[in-house]
Amino acid sequence: MSASLTFEEISPADFFYRNREIAGFTNPARAIFSAIRELVENALDACEACRIPPDIYVRLSYVDRSERDVGVYALRVEDDGSGIPAQYIPSAFGQVLFGSKFKLKQARGTFGLGGTMAILYGQITTHRPAYVMSSTGTSKIYIYKLMIDIQRNKPIILERKVRENTTRWHGTVVEFCLEGDYLRAMPKVLEYLKQTAMVNPYANITFVDPRGRLYRFSRVTEEMPPPPREIRPHPHGVDVETIQRLIRATTCRTMLEFMRTHFHRVGENTARRFLKFAGISERRNPKTLGHEEVVKLMRMMKSFDGFLPPDASCLSPLGENLLKAGIMKELKPEFVAVCQRKPSTYSGHPFIVETAIAYGGGVPRRGEIVLYRFANRIPLLYDEASDVSWQVIKSINWRHYKVTPDMPIAIITHICSTKVPYKTVGKEFIADRPEVRNELLNGIREVARKLKRYLTRREHVEKERRRLAVFSKYLPKIARFSAQLAGKKEPPNIEKLLRRVRRFEGEGD
Amino acid sequence: MSASLTFEEISPADFFYRNREIAGFTNPARAIFSAIRELVENALDACEACRIPPDIYVRLSYVDRSERDVGVYALRVEDDGSGIPAQYIPSAFGQVLFGSKFKLKQARGTFGLGGTMAILYGQITTHRPAYVMSSTGTSKIYIYKLMIDIQRNKPIILERKVRENTTRWHGTVVEFCLEGDYLRAMPKVLEYLKQTAMVNPYANITFVDPRGRLYRFSRVTEEMPPPPREIRPHPHGVDVETIQRLIRATTCRTMLEFMRTHFHRVGENTARRFLKFAGISERRNPKTLGHEEVVKLMRMMKSFDGFLPPDASCLSPLGENLLKAGIMKELKPEFVAVCQRKPSTYSGHPFIVETAIAYGGGVPRRGEIVLYRFANRIPLLYDEASDVSWQVIKSINWRHYKVTPDMPIAIITHICSTKVPYKTVGKEFIADRPEVRNELLNGIREVARKLKRYLTRREHVEKERRRLAVFSKYLPKIARFSAQLAGKKEPPNIEKLLRRVRRFEGEGD
Repeated sequence: MSASLTFEEISPADFFYRNREIAGFTNPARAIFSAIRELVENALDACEACRIPPDIYVRLSYVDRSERDVGVYALRVEDDGSGIPAQYIPSAFGQVLFGSKFKLKQARGTFGLGGTMAILYGQITTHRPAYVMSSTGTSKIYIYKLMIDIQRNKPIILERKVRENTTRWHGTVVEFCLEGDYLRAMPKVLEYLKQTAMVNPYANITFVDPRGRLYRFSRVTEEMPPPPREIRPHPHGVDVETIQRLIRATTCRTMLEFMRTHFHRVGENTARRFLKFAGISERRNPKTLGHEEVVKLMRMMKSFDGFLPPDASCLSPLGENLLKAGIMKELKPEFVAVCQRKPSTYSGHPFIVETAIAYGGGVPRRGEIVLYRFANRIPLLYDEASDVSWQVIKSINWRHYKVTPDMPIAIITHICSTKVPYKTVGKEFIADRPEVRNELLNGIREVARKLKRYLTRREHVEKERRRLAVFSKYLPKIARFSAQLAGKKEPPNIEKLLRRVRRFEGEGD
Repeated sequence: MSASLTFEEISPADFFYRNREIAGFTNPARAIFSAIRELVENALDACEACRIPPDIYVRLSYVDRSERDVGVYALRVEDDGSGIPAQYIPSAFGQVLFGSKFKLKQARGTFGLGGTMAILYGQITTHRPAYVMSSTGTSKIYIYKLMIDIQRNKPIILERKVRENTTRWHGTVVEFCLEGDYLRAMPKVLEYLKQTAMVNPYANITFVDPRGRLYRFSRVTEEMPPPPREIRPHPHGVDVETIQRLIRATTCRTMLEFMRTHFHRVGENTARRFLKFAGISERRNPKTLGHEEVVKLMRMMKSFDGFLPPDASCLSPLGENLLKAGIMKELKPEFVAVCQRKPSTYSGHPFIVETAIAYGGGVPRRGEIVLYRFANRIPLLYDEASDVSWQVIKSINWRHYKVTPDMPIAIITHICSTKVPYKTVGKEFIADRPEVRNELLNGIREVARKLKRYLTRREHVEKERRRLAVFSKYLPKIARFSAQLAGKKEPPNIEKLLRRVRRFEGEGD
């Protein structure tokens, strides 16, 4: 017999080139959607990095409009964010697995390959270079024309220009061509922008589509949520590899110092108590730990219950006011209730769940509850049925909250975390982690209870209005009749009486 | 303002270490399942590569059974397949994106990172080395003890031994430790093995679980489907990058030769007609094509309708007999119908859909149709609701086929292709491509029609049996009565009469 297997190595760029489905580039319509989304998310992150209310301009235009559905488009995205230091520009856009998002920090695009994937897709469908212009607000603006060497996963610089930056402009402009199908992508693209505006009410987003139609989503506030911060790993969440890396890099000479320096929520006292629990000497040099000992250390960290839970101050939830403002702006409902849950944690990663329910007004009526899902302030639009939020909604007995399928009800869920448990690189849906599920369930129940109170009160008000209508119709007649009977000229004043049978003051809340 | 972004590069191993969810390693239960699955699939592929009916032995045992649900297990998988050449062993198990599966060919694990991902996960949860023993049937057996340098994506060889191979054994044995939760994983693991046995009826699979329970799935046939072959790319499926790579590598001096040599289904005549259509000279040297011309070439290839569709001889469907044998073996139904559709193609990739329907007998009764999904002979067990097969089943009006939800009905779908459009690296479900959906719909309808005929006939037979029961009850009485009336001693022979009113011969088919 003969071995018929041959072996080879491929680069990460080559891997994603071959498996673009897992990054959301499944077909020409999806590709347009994914490209816009990845670049808009990078732009939003770049603005928030320097605490500037984002001003984002997106333009999609025809380059070659064939008769068939699929054509070649140019996509341009401009932001006024922090900009990218010149030396990093080529790799940031021309190398897969190179980026600024590999930190333990809440960020929109957690895989760090979104922008490059979009450019890679553009290149393989059109083989045209990408154009990038950026400045960090220094005296220079850098302009690059780039392609990607896919087999080697390296940027190819075709052109590099430097211009004076007289206005001290900062931000990034990216433009490249890609094959796509905008007509099919349009509903999702517009929905994506609308929902992005909903959870980023402090952003201006302008979109010009290939037919020149302008869509503008204006900010309603300049207030921005506090920026996310990078944190050290929590002892409950680390694995052997992380500990090994820390040991390799540390300058600490004792385990006591090592624990205090490199882990989140570990102070002097906690470190002492933990090391006693783990049976490791405080004065042991971390670099002398053997494999088995590191494994034991990790298991001890997981089972020690004396660590405080991760601090969520590194997270940047929207907050109830901003979430409400965003929903009011984009959905214009009759009623809205929002809820921010307390921080929680899954395998050492802190997360916060925010939920909202909107009823009536501009909320679409679809025969079932409309779900808007968000994670780290980006909307998730695909594979809803597999998402944990949808599963939680299905598990609730909605009759209990006076909700029937024909009502115009929208539920909004927002999960923010240093690590969102996505199941695909395309960020379509969130895995079902019990801790996340629980927080979602409680959050949705809480806003559902508020809706129930509102609906109940509205029902009472409605009943009352009908009851009062009866009184106000017949009381004057009775009064007039009684007056006649009693031989009086003027019927008695029944206003007081009517006011006394009224049970509620206003109508709504 | 200051730029607060810092940039860095990470290795592919590091990427998957950080994002193990997308490779199916979401939690301890899923990890056990995914590790078993990846290694079993590699083992099956290794056996088929050398046309040997697979004999696969899987053993999961406790290493450290803590009181909590999650423990440390040792997983050992043995096969009698082609083996791995010694020089490739370290990289095949210790380097992400190194493998034998990056060809245009039907293979079970299309991402080529399954085995390494499992070992990577084992390492980060236990930090123990992996043990690999392999021989391609030469005079030597090679034994390695390995770990992965995740930051550099390189194998670390801790130990290497060479042994005499007196029996000329060939195959591979892998053993490593990982953290997991077998109790929670058990139902899925057993379901996975059962379904794997269903579509690999020529394989012996033995599984010994941590409590020492033995599960054995025995082959019912030695017959194996024809092996998949590697093919050249079809012109409808290539992109600019592929053409560029071919141009870089080719030794052809003319476009005519280039087209004939490097593309599937392009002979002399087709090449001539195509080049005329594309307006490219037959004698043009491919290496002189500029960017724009390559892009044009690609677009012309996509729009030329003179290419024959991809030849599916490179694919290896199960075939109706094997599929039926597998279903009979594992489900033992009362009725089964199978169907193999003609080869079809989506964006240049050939695929074949096989469908089956099973009714009664051992088919579970779940209040709805039970779906068994397969792709390139592996079962898909997660995220059923998002899979195109389930969407197709939901779209069918089953009353039309006399199927009601309470019936014990199973539908089996199998898609084989050189490129299965999975949506996650964890191979959970298949994306909704219109061409694939169509084939599935037609295939399921065809077997459903067969089931309908069977159910209709069974209904008739049942009616008939009742009708005959009436005849055979009363005819003798009438005969006896008539005989008495006529004064005859013996009643007439009514057998003939009874036979004449019988409409069907047998009962089933």
